[in-house]
This record gives sequence, C-alpha cells and structure tokens, in this order.
Amino acid sequence: MNVGLVIFDQFTDIDFFLPWDLLNRVRLLGLSKDWKVEILADQKNCLSAAGLEVKSTKPYSFANECQGLLFCSGQKTRALLKDQIFLSNFKLDPSVQAIAAIDSGALILAALGLLKNRKATTYPSAFETLKELGAEPMRAAFVEDTVATAAQCLSGDKLALWIIERLCGQSVAERVFNSVKPLV
Amino acid sequence: MNVGLVIFDQFTDIDFFLPWDLLNRVRLLGLSKDWKVEILADQKNCLSAAGLEVKSTKPYSFANECQGLLFCSGQKTRALLKDQIFLSNFKLDPSVQAIAAIDSGALILAALGLLKNRKATTYPSAFETLKELGAEPMRAAFVEDTVATAAQCLSGDKLALWIIERLCGQSVAERVFNSVKPLV
Repeated sequence: MNVGLVIFDQFTDIDFFLPWDLLNRVRLLGLSKDWKVEILADQKNCLSAAGLEVKSTKPYSFANECQGLLFCSGQKTRALLKDQIFLSNFKLDPSVQAIAAIDSGALILAALGLLKNRKATTYPSAFETLKELGAEPMRAAFVEDTVATAAQCLSGDKLALWIIERLCGQSVAERVFNSVKPLV
Repeated sequence: MNVGLVIFDQFTDIDFFLPWDLLNRVRLLGLSKDWKVEILADQKNCLSAAGLEVKSTKPYSFANECQGLLFCSGQKTRALLKDQIFLSNFKLDPSVQAIAAIDSGALILAALGLLKNRKATTYPSAFETLKELGAEPMRAAFVEDTVATAAQCLSGDKLALWIIERLCGQSVAERVFNSVKPLV
C-alpha cells in the first residue's frame, strides 16, 4: 500500500510533517506489512517555508499509483493552480483512492476537478478561490465529501487518520491516534 | 533571541517538527526581529525515526546560549541518560532560560538534575524512570514547574507556545496559535 504526500518548494512545514509522522506509524508500529509513505515532487529536494530541505522519493505522477494521497499547503499553491504541466501529472480516482488536502492544498484538488459541487474546507481567506473553482466552501476543521479536506495546520492529524482508516480500518487508525494523543 | 531544539538519531518526528513549525512562525509572521530557531546536535545530520534527515545548525553546547530550549524525544534518550559526554554539554539555568521537554526528553532534563523534586510528565511507560531520577511524575498533557514538560506527541504545541509566551509574551503566542488552530 502506497501513500503519497505531495509537496513543493515553500510548503508549510507542519502540513507535511504532522501527517508524515502519523502515516509512518502504521509501518513503525507494525500495523501493516506493505505500507509505504512516499514524498512526491518532481524536483530532488523541496525547501519548507521554515527552511528545512526534504528529499522527494517519487515524482508527482506516482500519485496515480497511490492508494492514499495528501496534498500539502503552501504559498506556491496559487501558482500551481495554473501550472498545466504540474496538474497534468495527476489522473486521480477518488472512488478507489483516499484523497485528502490540507489548507490551500484543497485549491489544487479543486483545480483538478475533484471538488466540483462538493463540500470542502480550507483557510477562510481562500474560501472565495475555492468557490470560484466549483467547490462549496464549509467553515469546518474537517470535511469529508468523497475526498477529505481540513482547515488550519493542526487539523492535519484528522486527514492522516482518515486515510489510515480508509485503507487499514478503524482499529489501526485508533492505535495510531492513541500513540500520539495528549495524555489525559 | 535563540531557541534551540535538541535532537539526536532516531528522534521522534513530530516531537521535533511540530514545535519547529510553531517556533519558526514567530519569525515568519514578523513577530520578533531577532528570533532564531537552531537545531542542536553534535553530528552534521540526524535521522528521524520515520527516516527523514535533518541537518543540525549548532552543536549541543549552544544550548547554553539559548533563551529557549526544547529537548525532543526518541528511543535513544535511554542511552543518552548515561552518556556523560552528551550530558556535559549542558550548563542550563531555568531561572533565565525557558526550558522544555517532550515525552522521553523529560528523562534528559531529569538526568541533568533539572527535575529534582519537581513535577513533570512523560509517557506513562517512562514514569518509573522519571521517578528514579528524582522527579514527581504527573499524569497530564502539560506540566509547568519551573521547566515545562508534555506527554504524548500531539502535546508538543503546548511546549512551543509556552516558550514563545515566556520569551515574547502572551499576545505573540496567541497570534502563533491562531495561525494553526483547527478552524471552528
């Protein structure tokens, strides 16, 4: 099972790193035998907004071979919306892939036609753009409508857990969450 | 103002990356003029538990020049507790430094004598070791007793915000939190 995280230069750190950690726990906790998390970009390294360099492990087109997929957020998403070379990599099918996006990553999903007449969330300042791209913006931390979207960085855990639940079931998602949830 | 994040090989990803993102927002949001987040390790690169390579920016001894400091967690902490060369780098003073630790990072604080008769938290399986090292374990997500400790990875935001509040004040910490808190 392959899960891809789509990044690009100036990606928002936590939008990538939080799901990255949670998704990898499926493997690290021994909850799935063939679980692999891939970092998707066409360039060798991407530089985060806060200045960390992350190596990609697969090109963008590998998204089409992933069972789970998460589009990260960042300042560059506005340019990527109009980048036909970038967009043409993705031939996605939400009926067989668990597809998610955080914050402005939702705009990329919309540009790919995956949010047409679907409810979705992003940060409020991007609601108007999301609407222009055919989606129905919802003010919520997490929205599931065939694909899943989440708003504001600390909601990224919900997307990672949604992908895990879709691909591995509820009990695996719960075990991952139990390993990180604040102690009570 | 320097804030240091102490890492080592096999560090738990989110214990570093979540505070890393939040702490850097002070600079990225333009909330402090001289704010710098440093990654402290004596080796050039550290490999995270999930397999990401992170470059250090300063040696461990730079911790003594930091106004804020956070010890990350990971499997290697048990060995570091007995590593006198590692421990001898740190000459810390919680009366003038905002010092924090997540999960098993608390054991390092204890080994440095910073939790003697102080309340602290970590993940429950490390409570016994924390007690043996002189601390008073508390079952809580966040504990402040001169230094700050937090239990289970998704509590890392509380430590980053505590450091920011101590060094820059409550309104700056609130602005950082507002930029990431799940949309309601």
